[in-house]
Amino acid sequence: MDMILKGGRVITASDSFIADVAVKDGKIVAIGKELSDTADKVVDVTGKYVLPGAIDAHTHMAMPFGGTVSSDSYLSGTRAAVCGGVTTIFDYPVQHKGETILGLCGSKDEVLKEEACCDYAFHCCITDLNDGDILNEMEQAVEKGITSFKCFLVYKKEGMMVDDGTLARLLLRAKELGAMINVHAENPDLIDLRTEQFLREGKTSAWYHYLSRPEFVEAEADKRVVHLASHLDTPVYIVHMADEEGLEACIEAKKKGHDIYVETCPQYLEFTCDVYKREDGRNFVCSPPMKGQASQDALWRAIKAGLIDTVATDHCPFQSYEKDWGKDDFTKIPNGCAGVENLYPYMLSAANEGKLSFEKVVELCATNVAKIFGCTDKGSIAVGKDADLVVYDPEKEFTISASNMHSDCDHTIWEGKKLHGYPVQTYLRGQLVYDNGEFVGTPGIGRYIKRAKYSKK
Amino acid sequence: MDMILKGGRVITASDSFIADVAVKDGKIVAIGKELSDTADKVVDVTGKYVLPGAIDAHTHMAMPFGGTVSSDSYLSGTRAAVCGGVTTIFDYPVQHKGETILGLCGSKDEVLKEEACCDYAFHCCITDLNDGDILNEMEQAVEKGITSFKCFLVYKKEGMMVDDGTLARLLLRAKELGAMINVHAENPDLIDLRTEQFLREGKTSAWYHYLSRPEFVEAEADKRVVHLASHLDTPVYIVHMADEEGLEACIEAKKKGHDIYVETCPQYLEFTCDVYKREDGRNFVCSPPMKGQASQDALWRAIKAGLIDTVATDHCPFQSYEKDWGKDDFTKIPNGCAGVENLYPYMLSAANEGKLSFEKVVELCATNVAKIFGCTDKGSIAVGKDADLVVYDPEKEFTISASNMHSDCDHTIWEGKKLHGYPVQTYLRGQLVYDNGEFVGTPGIGRYIKRAKYSKK
Amino acid sequence: MDMILKGGRVITASDSFIADVAVKDGKIVAIGKELSDTADKVVDVTGKYVLPGAIDAHTHMAMPFGGTVSSDSYLSGTRAAVCGGVTTIFDYPVQHKGETILGLCGSKDEVLKEEACCDYAFHCCITDLNDGDILNEMEQAVEKGITSFKCFLVYKKEGMMVDDGTLARLLLRAKELGAMINVHAENPDLIDLRTEQFLREGKTSAWYHYLSRPEFVEAEADKRVVHLASHLDTPVYIVHMADEEGLEACIEAKKKGHDIYVETCPQYLEFTCDVYKREDGRNFVCSPPMKGQASQDALWRAIKAGLIDTVATDHCPFQSYEKDWGKDDFTKIPNGCAGVENLYPYMLSAANEGKLSFEKVVELCATNVAKIFGCTDKGSIAVGKDADLVVYDPEKEFTISASNMHSDCDHTIWEGKKLHGYPVQTYLRGQLVYDNGEFVGTPGIGRYIKRAKYSKK
Amino acid sequence: MDMILKGGRVITASDSFIADVAVKDGKIVAIGKELSDTADKVVDVTGKYVLPGAIDAHTHMAMPFGGTVSSDSYLSGTRAAVCGGVTTIFDYPVQHKGETILGLCGSKDEVLKEEACCDYAFHCCITDLNDGDILNEMEQAVEKGITSFKCFLVYKKEGMMVDDGTLARLLLRAKELGAMINVHAENPDLIDLRTEQFLREGKTSAWYHYLSRPEFVEAEADKRVVHLASHLDTPVYIVHMADEEGLEACIEAKKKGHDIYVETCPQYLEFTCDVYKREDGRNFVCSPPMKGQASQDALWRAIKAGLIDTVATDHCPFQSYEKDWGKDDFTKIPNGCAGVENLYPYMLSAANEGKLSFEKVVELCATNVAKIFGCTDKGSIAVGKDADLVVYDPEKEFTISASNMHSDCDHTIWEGKKLHGYPVQTYLRGQLVYDNGEFVGTPGIGRYIKRAKYSKK
Repeated sequence: MDMILKGGRVITASDSFIADVAVKDGKIVAIGKELSDTADKVVDVTGKYVLPGAIDAHTHMAMPFGGTVSSDSYLSGTRAAVCGGVTTIFDYPVQHKGETILGLCGSKDEVLKEEACCDYAFHCCITDLNDGDILNEMEQAVEKGITSFKCFLVYKKEGMMVDDGTLARLLLRAKELGAMINVHAENPDLIDLRTEQFLREGKTSAWYHYLSRPEFVEAEADKRVVHLASHLDTPVYIVHMADEEGLEACIEAKKKGHDIYVETCPQYLEFTCDVYKREDGRNFVCSPPMKGQASQDALWRAIKAGLIDTVATDHCPFQSYEKDWGKDDFTKIPNGCAGVENLYPYMLSAANEGKLSFEKVVELCATNVAKIFGCTDKGSIAVGKDADLVVYDPEKEFTISASNMHSDCDHTIWEGKKLHGYPVQTYLRGQLVYDNGEFVGTPGIGRYIKRAKYSKK
Repeated sequence: MDMILKGGRVITASDSFIADVAVKDGKIVAIGKELSDTADKVVDVTGKYVLPGAIDAHTHMAMPFGGTVSSDSYLSGTRAAVCGGVTTIFDYPVQHKGETILGLCGSKDEVLKEEACCDYAFHCCITDLNDGDILNEMEQAVEKGITSFKCFLVYKKEGMMVDDGTLARLLLRAKELGAMINVHAENPDLIDLRTEQFLREGKTSAWYHYLSRPEFVEAEADKRVVHLASHLDTPVYIVHMADEEGLEACIEAKKKGHDIYVETCPQYLEFTCDVYKREDGRNFVCSPPMKGQASQDALWRAIKAGLIDTVATDHCPFQSYEKDWGKDDFTKIPNGCAGVENLYPYMLSAANEGKLSFEKVVELCATNVAKIFGCTDKGSIAVGKDADLVVYDPEKEFTISASNMHSDCDHTIWEGKKLHGYPVQTYLRGQLVYDNGEFVGTPGIGRYIKRAKYSKK
Repeated sequence: MDMILKGGRVITASDSFIADVAVKDGKIVAIGKELSDTADKVVDVTGKYVLPGAIDAHTHMAMPFGGTVSSDSYLSGTRAAVCGGVTTIFDYPVQHKGETILGLCGSKDEVLKEEACCDYAFHCCITDLNDGDILNEMEQAVEKGITSFKCFLVYKKEGMMVDDGTLARLLLRAKELGAMINVHAENPDLIDLRTEQFLREGKTSAWYHYLSRPEFVEAEADKRVVHLASHLDTPVYIVHMADEEGLEACIEAKKKGHDIYVETCPQYLEFTCDVYKREDGRNFVCSPPMKGQASQDALWRAIKAGLIDTVATDHCPFQSYEKDWGKDDFTKIPNGCAGVENLYPYMLSAANEGKLSFEKVVELCATNVAKIFGCTDKGSIAVGKDADLVVYDPEKEFTISASNMHSDCDHTIWEGKKLHGYPVQTYLRGQLVYDNGEFVGTPGIGRYIKRAKYSKK
Repeated sequence: MDMILKGGRVITASDSFIADVAVKDGKIVAIGKELSDTADKVVDVTGKYVLPGAIDAHTHMAMPFGGTVSSDSYLSGTRAAVCGGVTTIFDYPVQHKGETILGLCGSKDEVLKEEACCDYAFHCCITDLNDGDILNEMEQAVEKGITSFKCFLVYKKEGMMVDDGTLARLLLRAKELGAMINVHAENPDLIDLRTEQFLREGKTSAWYHYLSRPEFVEAEADKRVVHLASHLDTPVYIVHMADEEGLEACIEAKKKGHDIYVETCPQYLEFTCDVYKREDGRNFVCSPPMKGQASQDALWRAIKAGLIDTVATDHCPFQSYEKDWGKDDFTKIPNGCAGVENLYPYMLSAANEGKLSFEKVVELCATNVAKIFGCTDKGSIAVGKDADLVVYDPEKEFTISASNMHSDCDHTIWEGKKLHGYPVQTYLRGQLVYDNGEFVGTPGIGRYIKRAKYSKK
């Protein structure tokens, strides 16, 4: 055996127990009491928790957006990931008109091969069916392990939006192929209408970013997606759910047996729209924006009731100087925040405080993501799985600050947030890549994850 | 090590993977690839599944009821249990007026000590608060590991019913103590009204058993329980849910964050009320009765959506000659059917046919039961848990018949049911008690399970 | 013609228009522009509104209750009625064990023949089926025009409660006969439980009257009634609805096509439970008690959406000295308040302030009551109807005070309430009985209303 | 007096009673028993019902559509109207890009002045805001009595669709002005998607008209409209509701107090989508198409529960030869059917059969339409209203046939429908325009109705 993590509390989506975890050739090979110590490396993790590495199902690295490029390169973004216990990221390459899926993802893969500090997969964003060619190409993409695609119901002016007919075609085609469609659901016409009105009235602070896309603007699109997927009898995955009414529609559909998956993000669980009234409100600008307290309460309630499937970050940071472009005009603020390094620490800290169980955090941040998106070798501590392991110290106090983060972004919306418990080590397929505050991996260590087809459990 | 089950597919509530399982001193000590073969006993289970033993949360052994006694003694009932992969049963001792909890459960424990072929725990049925003494005694009961109690909203004439005020007091007291209240929910006044009418009209066949307590009669009580528990902010566990409207009320309450647990039974998942039109309809008489197709569909839908918590059997068999008492008068049929040996085989066969996942079956029949009712050492395959293990052959074809069951009951409602896959071995704390069709254990091997307090996950 | 009311604005449930109203032999015989002035009496009501007399579907005159008798005799109660624009009351005689319907209502009729200042009808309260005799007698009662019956789901200790089976029998029997069942819905066990606890804890102020029967205690019974009536497919009329959750259940059932009628009262539309914190809180004690703001808002919302059918008063006053019995113990306060004189003025003032339309007030307080309860000759201004007419001055300012009320009760919960607009005249079958603040009728003028059977519109 | 209708049963939305109705100068001046017979004309209507003329809120006369023009001119369409008891129609002029409201409606008014056989009003269809000019012009339109506007969420390719932002602007502007927005709700992208697919697959019969826009395609748009209007807090009126799920959304919003109005049509109450399987299925092609039985049941249920506001016809006939264009390709069938002459007879026949009350029919087809759309002088039999009167013979048997209709259309979807009861006379402002099967009026008699602003009741 190559390594044994000794004496920790192992946590899976269903269980929590004290055991050693043995690793060989990058795989978990045994979990047991007092496994023989003949391993090359024995790490005493008594008093610590041993968790599966988190899978961040939603990141945007090096993405051209808002007139610039999101400020984490694949290198710095995946470095930040492992330093927060994330061992796999999903990136969202965005198709330009005419571009092919494989061309697009291939070009990203080139870079990631060199830079990735964690494993990675692609949800490919479709903005144009290329006269139907994309529907054909999806089959090849699925064969190559790209088994999920995204579409935007917003960004109409930016040419990224798909209409309801295109959404329907994608949903139906994906179902045929065993793939999943992820949807960013907000109503673009309402956003434009409100935005124009605010600009006309000289209402340009970050607060109007929220008011230009408040609860009901997101909810309309959520409800539309749920309606379509339910009636077309296709699975769908709604990303970054942030409002109560849309969530409610998803839950109703789940109840009726529809295959609706819901992702939310730590920022919606922690912040409300009140942050947009802050001096630095622009730093919190992302889409959808944080909502009111009622929505936040609804999200937590749904998590506890088992009605939210995953928590991911929508990591998409921009530097302060870029955020400042919109100091006097919220429409000029690049949309997005850093988060990949905060996902697991934030959720685990909530568990540590008793807000939910550790098992539930593992389920939301790792196991469910792996199941929904076909990461067969990931997402749990089980024999045969990749040894993507996080050692978590439940006693460690930690205060988030830009200075102790590993992103290239120069600020964080989580600045000052105190966490109870923190990851102390991250192993990627058995290799230590993060150790006690330091990134200790090698860029390029990360591998592309060829994913299995989706099948309803 | 005492034993290794080698090469099987291990299934937990969250994972499924091929691994060996090692047992020592009745505990699972390791799960791994090619664990060293130095164990006293090595069993090759290649091609088989290794599951945690099921926990049947609902049985009535040797229970005085309906003018007789349910026909499985603790011995034959627990023997049947292990032959169906159940390694722990919950029995429901019923208080007679004036009786104490500890007196009642103690007397059952005496018998079980001698007879139990599997482990056991008690939900104690409260029918009378003994001027409030029972509320006090509940504290001691909880200390002794009896952390759940049941009450009936039916059986008014039989003196077993509690009124809404008593239910409320029990719910509130249980919450204080970290205990759970289980409720049998049907409306007794409506049953009596309808029964009297049918008897008056000479409508006495088994079909009128169903019509005397159809969907809405159960649903009324379900809704009342959910209403009380929700507004009193207490957990509650509704046993043998069989109707859609009541289930719907539970689900609505779950959505709002209330701590409502729902149990259903294999008979409601397999049969509809149409069985009461059969020649042998009386054999299917149990309360609540099977309902219409819409209710059955709703139960399956909820199972798939994760909105039902447990599946248990309400095992309470009566001999054919006893069932025959009601040949010409459904009110004279003792209520109840055998089931403890069919729970796991039936549910696993459904998984094998693709109706739900094996992980979900393990969750419903073992893991969730252990979590809700505080069976800390039970319910999963994890290091440190009791080695309650079932070896399941997914290829074995099996047809249920009274002749291949291990109950003392002379017939079964499952007669002729074909199953795909069947348990071939059951281990109780590492000891083989069932082997390929034969009970091979020793009565008295079963132990009382002292349970932990309930705490919301 | 005997009389013409000239030049007023006539208001019906569907229309509002300026016209003369001509009366002959106690009936409305013509409605028109400039009807010829050859009537015996011509009353210029230019600038005034002419409304149908209100029908108070819910009063308790001279009722033995709470250890005393409600403080309005039939004389003073019906005198107050006409002075507030009510021209017909429904009284609720309460059966004592063994009593017959016709015996009971007959004895009340004796008194009313002498004392009634307005027309009257009986809803008979059934507390005991007298071994089924009552179910038979209901047929005769219906023939005599008693086409509605009430039952209490509360007052268990007082021996007035019926159980669910009896309720079901009454609902089914009433449906057969073309009669309506009215239900007082609160849960007695929960009330008793809470009351005992408060008394034990020395919590005895009027506020604990509310807390002993808060929203969910009423809602449980509302939901139960709706459940039964819906599934038995019978009409039902729920009296004095005061809570949101119960109302919601009624509305859901209405949506599904069930024949559920809802009555609320002015006190629930005006006051919240906060009144019980007042020094004189005991004066507001009635059952069900006033609820929180959310319930009040829900009641108004439902009125506007056409989802409440009637507004009535539950008039049941007690003198101050009687209310004082419960100064130090809320359980000793006789339950009930005066209201019959405030119904129409309160609702019409709300219309005058724009809260709802005048047509809607007429519908709620007169037309719907007449339709639901078979008062064929009442409830509207239409040719052939009884000339029960109210002349309303929309400009008159009025402040309610015990001193300007016509009840025998020495106080009013409405003390100090300012109204915009007030009735200035009331005609009962064409005869002036109230004129500008004064009762000008003759006791005994009122007649028994023989009602038609109920039929769903 | 000019005329008295003597001895009939007068029916209003709230009452039904026997009375004479007197008319002078085109107005109802008196309603009474034995009104003096000094009128110029006395018509004995004993045994008949006297109803207010119906107001058909939804017609398309002489409308360019589907490559032709709807086959009823204003003359033949309004002639058919009065022969069916409709005394006021609402026409829907459709804006071409760049056109102004007043220009558009003015041009229609020119024609109607000459041709109208009944009174008329305009809902103006907005397809383009003309860079916002329309929003300004709406104010003038409202001043001229055009207080309602329509928009289409379908007909995207035809350039008639408005997007969600435009809908929102119209809703908000209308609210400011006291106007109403009517919406045709179907989802165009889904229709196009499905239509293309069917054409590709050679599925071109009328049945595919239904399948190209089934229940969920309408429901999506219904839900979207309800969502917007509810959250923007504006009134909205959804035309020709035909599906259960969309209706359900409307009802939910009504319950919450939102100002959502729902119109349905006789064709949805009588036919289901099965008609599209008929040989002559193309004649039934209209949009939205008839739906399944569940939707029809839901519509009737809502009518009875008071949750549908109006019934109108969407009269838009095309000749058989035009319908034949789509014999082999459903997309070539002009969409629309005749109906204006069938509205009142159909609904009244349903009342006559006991399906709903006559009062309810009057409410749905006349009173509510007048209230919602500000036809102050119309919609009821009340003093001062226009003498738009229909004499209805409840005993007359009538079988609808193209040959006894007064439209210019050469066929009717109602062919062979037997009605119990039929209108025998129609009076428009006191003038007989229809008599026992014959149109007896003069084209040009109809007048433009200047309507009042909308205000919530």
